[in-house]
Amino acid sequence: MSSHGSSTPTVAIIGGGQLARMMAQSAVALGVPLRLLAEADGVSAAQVVPDTLVGDYRDLDTLRKVTDGCAVVTFDHEHVPTEHLHALADDGHACRPGPEALVHAQDKAVMRERLTALDVPCPRHAVVEDAEAVERFAASVGGFPVVLKTTRGGYDGKGVWVVGSAEESADAFATAEATGVRILAEEKVDFRRELSALVARSPSGQVAAYPVVESVQRDGICWEVVAPAPDLAAGLAVEAQQIAMKVAGELGVTGILAVELFETQDGRVLVNELAMRPHNTGHWSMDGAVTGQFENHLRAVLDLPLGSPDARAPWTVMVNILGGDDARLAGDLYAGYPHALARDPRLKVHLYGKSVKPGRKVGHVTAYGDDLEEVRERALHAAAWFRGDLGEESE
Amino acid sequence: MSSHGSSTPTVAIIGGGQLARMMAQSAVALGVPLRLLAEADGVSAAQVVPDTLVGDYRDLDTLRKVTDGCAVVTFDHEHVPTEHLHALADDGHACRPGPEALVHAQDKAVMRERLTALDVPCPRHAVVEDAEAVERFAASVGGFPVVLKTTRGGYDGKGVWVVGSAEESADAFATAEATGVRILAEEKVDFRRELSALVARSPSGQVAAYPVVESVQRDGICWEVVAPAPDLAAGLAVEAQQIAMKVAGELGVTGILAVELFETQDGRVLVNELAMRPHNTGHWSMDGAVTGQFENHLRAVLDLPLGSPDARAPWTVMVNILGGDDARLAGDLYAGYPHALARDPRLKVHLYGKSVKPGRKVGHVTAYGDDLEEVRERALHAAAWFRGDLGEESE
Repeated sequence: MSSHGSSTPTVAIIGGGQLARMMAQSAVALGVPLRLLAEADGVSAAQVVPDTLVGDYRDLDTLRKVTDGCAVVTFDHEHVPTEHLHALADDGHACRPGPEALVHAQDKAVMRERLTALDVPCPRHAVVEDAEAVERFAASVGGFPVVLKTTRGGYDGKGVWVVGSAEESADAFATAEATGVRILAEEKVDFRRELSALVARSPSGQVAAYPVVESVQRDGICWEVVAPAPDLAAGLAVEAQQIAMKVAGELGVTGILAVELFETQDGRVLVNELAMRPHNTGHWSMDGAVTGQFENHLRAVLDLPLGSPDARAPWTVMVNILGGDDARLAGDLYAGYPHALARDPRLKVHLYGKSVKPGRKVGHVTAYGDDLEEVRERALHAAAWFRGDLGEESE
Repeated sequence: MSSHGSSTPTVAIIGGGQLARMMAQSAVALGVPLRLLAEADGVSAAQVVPDTLVGDYRDLDTLRKVTDGCAVVTFDHEHVPTEHLHALADDGHACRPGPEALVHAQDKAVMRERLTALDVPCPRHAVVEDAEAVERFAASVGGFPVVLKTTRGGYDGKGVWVVGSAEESADAFATAEATGVRILAEEKVDFRRELSALVARSPSGQVAAYPVVESVQRDGICWEVVAPAPDLAAGLAVEAQQIAMKVAGELGVTGILAVELFETQDGRVLVNELAMRPHNTGHWSMDGAVTGQFENHLRAVLDLPLGSPDARAPWTVMVNILGGDDARLAGDLYAGYPHALARDPRLKVHLYGKSVKPGRKVGHVTAYGDDLEEVRERALHAAAWFRGDLGEESE
C-alpha cells in the first residue's frame, strides 16, 4: 500500500540488531523501504521496521521468503552461512556484500591467507591443529604469549584467547572441536593503540574513505572511538585508508568495510580484523560526519553515489553505553535522560531499545567540538552515567 | 514484546504525514516507542512506524483507542477537533500541546484576539460577517486589497484570498458558509520578506529558541528556507525570538511552536501565523542544527531537557521538493538520485514516501556551508532536479 515510485527498490536486511535499527533511520530519510529478518519479536530493529519477518537466518527457506521481491540483500551481522549466500546469489539476488567478499569477514583463516597474498600487512599467523603446533608457532614468533582465535563465529572478544603456554590452548581446541571450526594462532602484537579505517564501496567501484579513528577496547569490546585518531602521523593515516580501499576493491566488498588495525610501537599498521557492515567504530559518523556510515552503507548497496565522509567538527568522540549492574538504571536507561541531557545540551544519545544486561551494548553517546579533552569528558561522563557508574553525588 | 526499560514512555502521534515520519527518525535514536494514528494504510509515517492504527482523527473512540496506554499524545497536524482534545485531557492524557494552547493554532480569530491582548504585534484584523463588513474593514486600513482567511482549516495557501474589492469576497463567504467557519479580514502587509521564529518549549517551562530564518513562499507554499535569515538586524532577530518565547509561554505551548512573521518594509515584525508542531521552516535544523526540531519536539513533549538549537554551519538552506508534472520523474523520485547525489556529495535528501502530485510536498533537500550563494545554488539545483524542472542537458 505504500506510494513509492515505481523504481524505488526494497532492501532486505538480515538480522534485527542495532545496526539494522540505525540503517532504518537512514532508510527513512532516503525514502527506501526495508524488509527485515529478525531473530525474535521485538528485537532492536524489529521495533522500528514495520515489514519484519521473524525467523532463523540459518534457514534457506526463511532467507528466500524474506528476500523475495527485494532488489538488494544486506546484513546486520556476518553469520549467514556462506552456502546460503551462494544460494541466494544463484537465485539472482544482489547480496551486498556478496558471499565471495563476506567469507573474508566470516573466516579469519581465509582472511589472513588472502590479505597476505595481497601484501597487506598482518600479524604473523598460522592455522594450528593442536597444542604442539601452538608451541611451534610461538617459537617462530619469539615465544609466548600468542593469540588463539576461532576462525569463525567470534565477536566482541568471544572466541579469542591469549595463551602463555601450549597447555593453555586446551580451551581453544575444546571450543574448536565443539563447534567444528579451526584455530588460528597470531603473534601478540605490541601495539601502541588500535585504529579503524572505514570505507564505503559501491558495486560500481566508487569508494568513500572516512577519517581514520582511534578505537579504545576494554575486555574485547569497543568502548570509545575518537575521530580522527589523535596525533596520527599523516603517512600512517594515508596508509590505513589505502589498506582499506585496497581490501575493499580486491575483495569486491559492497557497503561498509571496517578494517581494524594495530598501530605498532615501531610505527607500522597491521590489520587485526575485517567487518563488512556498518561498524561500532563508525557510529561517530552519524552525528560527526557529513554522511553517516548507515546512510553510506545503504547508498553503497543500492549503487547510488556515495556521500561525503568528511568530519563536520575537529573532534568527535563516541562512547558505547554498556549495560551496568547498577540498580538505579538497571533495565531503565530512560531514567538516565534528565541528568545526561540537562548537563550537556549538545550531547547526541542513541538508545537501541535493548534490555540491559551487564556488558551488553545498549546504546552510544556522541559529542563533538573543537577541544578534544572537553569533548571526551562530555562523552565519557554521559556514557558512565547511563551505565550507572556515577552516583547521584557525581552530578 | 519490546525490551524497553520500565519507565520508557510511549508517545502517541495523531496524523501520519511527513512530520510524524520525521518524528519517528528521532524517536528511533531516543529509544522512544511510538504509536501512530494514520489516515490510511501506507501513508508517509505509517511506512516507518510498526505500531500504527488506521482511523479517523475526528472520531473520539478512535482517538481513545490509539492513545490508550500512551504517556503523551502529540500531533502531526492541528486538525483534531478541540472538543476531542478536551475529552482526551479529561481522560487524563497529556496532550502536548494541550487544547487551550492548540486552539490558537486552529482558529485564527482566537489567535489574533489573544495575541493582540498580549501586545504581540499583528497585522490589523477583524472578523467579518459579510461583504459590507469587508468594505468597512478595507476603509479602516487604507483600502483594498485586503486578505481574507477562513478562521479554521486552511493550510498551504488554501482558505486564503487576497481581494481587491468587497465583491471579490464572495468565494470566501461561500466557503465559510459551506464549512461553518468564520472569515477573518487582515490588512495586506507590505512586507520585505517572511521570517520564522521556532522555539521548543517543555511543560517544565524550558525554552530553546532556534535561529530566526527567512522563508520564501511561492503560491502560498513554503519553497525555500535560509538559516539564519540573511542581513537580519540583530534587534529584529531578538524581537522575533522574544515574540516566539512570549507566545509559547503565555499560551502554554508544549513542543515546537513556529511563529511565521512578516518583516515589514519599515523595519517591524508582525505575526502572520502560528503552528504548534514541527514546521516546514524548521526542517533545515535536521541537518543544520545541533538538535533538530523533531528531536526537540519529542524531548519537549516528554518533558526531557531540550537540546541545543544552535546552527552547526554558517549557512543552511532547505528547499522543498514539490511534485512536478515532468514525465521523467513523475511518480519516481528515486530516479532523481544518481544525478543529485553524484553532483553534490554533501547534499542531504529527505524523501517522504509520498506519491508525486503536482504541487505536493514530497521531500526536501538541505545544503549547508560557509558561502550562502554556493549553498543556495546547491539546494535549489537539487530540488529543481527532483521536481523535474531541469532537463538532462542541465547536468
